[in-house]
Amino acid sequence: MKEQIIDKITQEVMRKMNASNAEENKSKEKNICGLTEFVGTGRGDTIGLVIANVDSSVHEAMNLDKKYRSIGIIGGRIGAGPQILAADEAVKATNTEILAIELARDTKGGAGHGSLIIFGAEDVADARRAVEVALKELERTFGDVYGNEAGHIEFQYTARASYACEKAFNAPVGKSFGLVVGAPAAIGVVLADTAVKAANVEVLSYSSPNQGTSFTNEVILTFTGDSGAVRQALIAAREVGIKLLGTLGSVPVSETIPYI
Amino acid sequence: MKEQIIDKITQEVMRKMNASNAEENKSKEKNICGLTEFVGTGRGDTIGLVIANVDSSVHEAMNLDKKYRSIGIIGGRIGAGPQILAADEAVKATNTEILAIELARDTKGGAGHGSLIIFGAEDVADARRAVEVALKELERTFGDVYGNEAGHIEFQYTARASYACEKAFNAPVGKSFGLVVGAPAAIGVVLADTAVKAANVEVLSYSSPNQGTSFTNEVILTFTGDSGAVRQALIAAREVGIKLLGTLGSVPVSETIPYI
Amino acid sequence: MKEQIIDKITQEVMRKMNASNAEENKSKEKNICGLTEFVGTGRGDTIGLVIANVDSSVHEAMNLDKKYRSIGIIGGRIGAGPQILAADEAVKATNTEILAIELARDTKGGAGHGSLIIFGAEDVADARRAVEVALKELERTFGDVYGNEAGHIEFQYTARASYACEKAFNAPVGKSFGLVVGAPAAIGVVLADTAVKAANVEVLSYSSPNQGTSFTNEVILTFTGDSGAVRQALIAAREVGIKLLGTLGSVPVSETIPYI
Repeated sequence: MKEQIIDKITQEVMRKMNASNAEENKSKEKNICGLTEFVGTGRGDTIGLVIANVDSSVHEAMNLDKKYRSIGIIGGRIGAGPQILAADEAVKATNTEILAIELARDTKGGAGHGSLIIFGAEDVADARRAVEVALKELERTFGDVYGNEAGHIEFQYTARASYACEKAFNAPVGKSFGLVVGAPAAIGVVLADTAVKAANVEVLSYSSPNQGTSFTNEVILTFTGDSGAVRQALIAAREVGIKLLGTLGSVPVSETIPYI
Repeated sequence: MKEQIIDKITQEVMRKMNASNAEENKSKEKNICGLTEFVGTGRGDTIGLVIANVDSSVHEAMNLDKKYRSIGIIGGRIGAGPQILAADEAVKATNTEILAIELARDTKGGAGHGSLIIFGAEDVADARRAVEVALKELERTFGDVYGNEAGHIEFQYTARASYACEKAFNAPVGKSFGLVVGAPAAIGVVLADTAVKAANVEVLSYSSPNQGTSFTNEVILTFTGDSGAVRQALIAAREVGIKLLGTLGSVPVSETIPYI
Repeated sequence: MKEQIIDKITQEVMRKMNASNAEENKSKEKNICGLTEFVGTGRGDTIGLVIANVDSSVHEAMNLDKKYRSIGIIGGRIGAGPQILAADEAVKATNTEILAIELARDTKGGAGHGSLIIFGAEDVADARRAVEVALKELERTFGDVYGNEAGHIEFQYTARASYACEKAFNAPVGKSFGLVVGAPAAIGVVLADTAVKAANVEVLSYSSPNQGTSFTNEVILTFTGDSGAVRQALIAAREVGIKLLGTLGSVPVSETIPYI
């Protein structure tokens, strides 16, 4: 039997297997389920939901601010930074408040967090709008997440932090804000050092597997400063991060488009 | 080269690959290992074990009630609710006590818990019997766990809660008890609201990634009430849960037979 | 179409798929990235790094002993015991101190920990040397880690514990030290009991999913005693562990060479 035929068959088999994967992905897009609570889905196995009038006993058990009966919810299996930065834009754009940000130990076997973010609103239309904005922003905020088979690095930037960044990271509202993540955590230590040495920024917080994370294998540094300095720190750390994570596997890549 | 031949080969290759998977599964059934401590295995990578007379220094380090030298152990990689409800039946059926229920962050890369449950008994035969009953019950208690590539939803019900449900969830002994889980956690929020709105039940506890779970990406609601109301709440939440989780992937399915 | 041809093609496809996996592994070996911070990589997706002079604000945020400006870092996605025992040898061999040992909930979807270990040194050459020694020792310390699709068991031994074992496990410095891990945790309970019954050893600590671990699905027992007793306890537990874990899947194997 000729080598070329085997090659051709192999390719064909692989093509068909990939095709069946693609079909599986396609099925993820059928996001109409007929429930009024459902808003949409987004990157990172993220779902967006809304409850017009939360049952009072559940509301109490959730320990939410009593002012808001309508809530918007976004939560994903993969990622916390992208969802928090997306929620930050949503809060700026709508008449809502961030009631809770909770970070699971997740990423589906990866090194990081999953996320659950709850918006409060007096009017359900505002809650729904916040969820819609956040889901749409995810495409951008996943832009500077770079992964390979060994881990991931993540960079987030906003010129003007709002209430989601304040709640999650104690970021000063209205100021430039940057976030650097390295996983495995050892890489994050070097990225934190690189960022702070590259520009005149002020450290807000340093989180590690046993402190400030939900036992993720990450080191996370957050910082503030003037807009140019924050971006410079992020760009320097990103360059180093891609090289370091690459030593443990293939070249780390973004799944969307880098925005920093 | 004809398209049909390629198709046939593709099918054949896939069939053979599946066959080798099946063989792997088959090897899991060879659960005779010749150790007196071994009782059996069950769904969810669960193992059942027994120690007739725990070494005193280990017993002390485990911080167990000194009354019991014989212990039965069930522990699995995947699932906590199914194992706890199975242990609940085991406690009803045997002369044993629940000494410990510990929940790891696990499910092998999934969104939920693993479990470790320890029964105490004065006689090793009772401990062994409890483990046997629990392993057998697992087949049923996994019945209302529905999963897909994005997460899982789970529903548990008992007409008469016993000491395992009391220890794990503060369920009132002898009363109807229900449990709703949604993962990713965002789905669990809506399921909790749905359950409580569907029937007249009393909320016992609400757990979320940062409170009451081991940082799982779940929201868990437990409740009590009369038997019909508890079931009605569960059935309503289940219907919504299957739709919501389905928006993130394929149709969620149970691996065994739903019992609620 | 003849059965033999299908078989041959199937084999060929599988061979090619394996080959592409091998190539992927090979790419992991290209560990030169041109950064002075990079030292090397090792088993368990472990990376070794060094910072000659940590930025003062990061140093403060990390809450490290101010005495040391140079730090060595090893951190991996898979494993904590192997990295800690490797760091223990590194501390013996170099003029460094263990500043931090942090354990993430990781192992890439497995049942155990990842790790982050930080060495402090006055001279960066010492920090680098410690990292080099630790990375090299990993090959040995992974020797008694046995895994299969359901979990893992791990055994560690040192005739003379040093400061890494002291920091992580309260091991008495200079004395024999042993560590037994079973995952899922249920298996670890029986291994703990087996180890202590097999020889005259003194229990140092017992960790379980909810206490002393980062919510891993493990039970970990550490103990001290005379060298022969510690080894005897480990060997007895290892024999039982391989049998028990084997009931949940295939025969557990070590990826390197057992050393105990």
